[in-house]
Amino acid sequence: MNQHSFPLDAIFKPEAIAVIGASDNPGKLGSHVMRSLTEGKYPGRIFPVNPGKGEILGIKTYPSLLHIPDGVDLSIIVLPAEQVPKTIRECNEKGVKGIVLITAGFKEIEDRRGESLQKEITELANRFGIKIIGPNTFGIVNLHLPLNASFTPEFSKVQKGGIGFVSQSGGMSHLFGFLSMKNQVGLSKIVGLGNRCNVDFWDMIEYLHQDRDTKVIAMYLEGLDQPRRLIEAAKRENSGKPVVAYKVGRSSTGDKASQFHTGSLAGKHEIYEAAFKQAGILTVNSSEELLDTAKGLALFCFPEGNRVAVLSGQAGPAMAACDVCEAGGLSISPFSSETQKRVDALIPPLAIRTNPVDMGPAWYNSEAIRGIVESVLEDRGMDAVLLCIMFASANRSAVGTLANSLLQIERKKPILCCISAPEGIWDEDIRRLERAGIPNYPTPERAAQTLVNLVRYKKLKR
Amino acid sequence: MNQHSFPLDAIFKPEAIAVIGASDNPGKLGSHVMRSLTEGKYPGRIFPVNPGKGEILGIKTYPSLLHIPDGVDLSIIVLPAEQVPKTIRECNEKGVKGIVLITAGFKEIEDRRGESLQKEITELANRFGIKIIGPNTFGIVNLHLPLNASFTPEFSKVQKGGIGFVSQSGGMSHLFGFLSMKNQVGLSKIVGLGNRCNVDFWDMIEYLHQDRDTKVIAMYLEGLDQPRRLIEAAKRENSGKPVVAYKVGRSSTGDKASQFHTGSLAGKHEIYEAAFKQAGILTVNSSEELLDTAKGLALFCFPEGNRVAVLSGQAGPAMAACDVCEAGGLSISPFSSETQKRVDALIPPLAIRTNPVDMGPAWYNSEAIRGIVESVLEDRGMDAVLLCIMFASANRSAVGTLANSLLQIERKKPILCCISAPEGIWDEDIRRLERAGIPNYPTPERAAQTLVNLVRYKKLKR
Repeated sequence: MNQHSFPLDAIFKPEAIAVIGASDNPGKLGSHVMRSLTEGKYPGRIFPVNPGKGEILGIKTYPSLLHIPDGVDLSIIVLPAEQVPKTIRECNEKGVKGIVLITAGFKEIEDRRGESLQKEITELANRFGIKIIGPNTFGIVNLHLPLNASFTPEFSKVQKGGIGFVSQSGGMSHLFGFLSMKNQVGLSKIVGLGNRCNVDFWDMIEYLHQDRDTKVIAMYLEGLDQPRRLIEAAKRENSGKPVVAYKVGRSSTGDKASQFHTGSLAGKHEIYEAAFKQAGILTVNSSEELLDTAKGLALFCFPEGNRVAVLSGQAGPAMAACDVCEAGGLSISPFSSETQKRVDALIPPLAIRTNPVDMGPAWYNSEAIRGIVESVLEDRGMDAVLLCIMFASANRSAVGTLANSLLQIERKKPILCCISAPEGIWDEDIRRLERAGIPNYPTPERAAQTLVNLVRYKKLKR
Repeated sequence: MNQHSFPLDAIFKPEAIAVIGASDNPGKLGSHVMRSLTEGKYPGRIFPVNPGKGEILGIKTYPSLLHIPDGVDLSIIVLPAEQVPKTIRECNEKGVKGIVLITAGFKEIEDRRGESLQKEITELANRFGIKIIGPNTFGIVNLHLPLNASFTPEFSKVQKGGIGFVSQSGGMSHLFGFLSMKNQVGLSKIVGLGNRCNVDFWDMIEYLHQDRDTKVIAMYLEGLDQPRRLIEAAKRENSGKPVVAYKVGRSSTGDKASQFHTGSLAGKHEIYEAAFKQAGILTVNSSEELLDTAKGLALFCFPEGNRVAVLSGQAGPAMAACDVCEAGGLSISPFSSETQKRVDALIPPLAIRTNPVDMGPAWYNSEAIRGIVESVLEDRGMDAVLLCIMFASANRSAVGTLANSLLQIERKKPILCCISAPEGIWDEDIRRLERAGIPNYPTPERAAQTLVNLVRYKKLKR
């Protein structure tokens, strides 16, 4: 068996996995887990465990964990709750160091037995030195291995990338995964912490800080028993990886629901806000903002200040962006007189040429657009550029040409875009820009809010 | 020629159109307009006008408007600005009653001649009784005729539906069109008012109030010269059609940009907010919220009060929805004791069963889910239902079954959904629900905000 540098490697980088409760009955979660592993093209060894089966999905199946002839790093457990303590003992006997415990019916249920069962398995796992993700989780996904150790085979379709997502909710993990698919944002890990028996947010923060595949840590939280530990972990880690958090439960009902859901009260929102700030964790207010902001943070190109140049192919989207920028404390300040002169020389006086610039009259003149962007990037008074271009048939070639230009220019300031067109028109150009670190957003307001958040992050880190 | 009941019918329901400045050169807007008409399958007669061409796109072309042998209802003009006054005189001579004036270079440019030219054409049009959309517009689209009288042929791909969109910005019209394509929301009209020479927001409000194809009026505004007229028009019309407005220019730079863009100062945001409220116009804060809310208003099924039941397949999304609901003044109030008894009898005590309900344990039991939804809809203490279900492989059949149930139940309360899955899994079920008046949103937060806005609208109208 592999010598692991970090205890959680047994879960995220296992060389051999046992699926305890594997099944080929589509009505059982054990069958979905088997499909996740095989359809997700997990490159290691898979050992299904089921006393009633000789093979599952064509893979030799064992009557128990202890019958497996080789070593096992990770057990994925999908058995009824009452069988879990015995299984953890077997895991210990077998030398298993990581468990993904999908089974529900622990601390989260009304019946007191759930809580005592969770206490029992936590003590066992701690005594044996076994790390458990869960219980009451959909599982985990490591898109870089690849390993889909979850009951949702479709997670394997998420694009591989730099955002590590850690969540207290399976539902929000699925939503985040689907949003990332639709927005073509790449993720490194998707982690459902469930009831957090002995792997909690702080453990994941430590682990993801050293994980080379993860550039940004995005978290969805409801409530924590020991918020201080999260804050301490975030403060201790100095990898420079941004951490962004979406915390729900600010409403009274949300708070109550949190207690039911994962056994923790959500707690006063203001306390979390202040603590996150102290720990350098950026906060956001919705699932889409979490994805947008994580995508922006993954650039690692932060604005030095709050002065933004808004360059737009049309005036309306620029105004919408300006409203969000100013509400978020950004300044749409005037260009230097030299920059203004250069811009004035490049476009005729048919639309607004001061910041925000309406580049409409330059649609057919790619050299002018390139010149405007270059001038503004060179303006020392500008910290970032927001670029909005709406497709309009006559400007079909604009984005391709602009992409060619932008990819040649040396960029030291972030450029965020809202380039929008019907499907199939600018998709490839947008992908080219994104690959080069120029992210695109579906609306001017969302691009602007992301820039606001990048400036907030920079300030937080000062 | 058709006897029009409303002057604007000449523009939105013409039987014959002249394209003055038609072209087959893809570098000219006149060629895009020709493609919009032909590719958009306009069913009436098209007369291209261009003195240098015998035919364009295989359609006989005339040297001037006056050479056209038949009557013309609408002229789409794509000539240089200085030729426009003469062309309007010819339109009058020909009996044309509507003009879409795409040409820019009027009030919006720095050069004073632009303003005087706009004054001249406005006086001519008013004297002749000709209605002009524009100048400085991309055009108009009537998806029900169909008529795409714009320079963007791709607008023809927007789905036909009940939302009439009126905009001061071409860029925002394109964005709104693309967002509606991506979200599969149907529009009735897309109207770019441009510099509003003699057709302004109030004219469009009057026109769309009597338009049978339009159920909801959605507006994007920057600044108005006579806001009072808009308010008066909105108050006067009693068709019961909801009007929702997204007004930008609240930032100081936005205000300045507005003046440049369409010649009107954006003006103090608070004044607009108060005036809109008085006129029964619902306000929103982003382009996506405008689309989401218009889609919700198109249901014509408004909550009687602010009490919402949140039913979710997973707890996390429910909590995110609750936060938005409570922040927007909605109440996640307890069910009646009878409803609670029915819910308790339907799902085991493995997750939260009070409002918000985590229906997770009922995933495999479609009768239970149907029972829960029915009980809650019958609860007199509940005014609306928010339904969240994230796909998770094991619950693949849940939405199909739920849709079958919901379509059978008599519904008198709005049901808004966030049902989310990777592409291709639940698309058809979601479409079935939407066709039956149960709209779906991409995130729990956006579904919740739409419900907040429906309650705000209902209050506004009281």
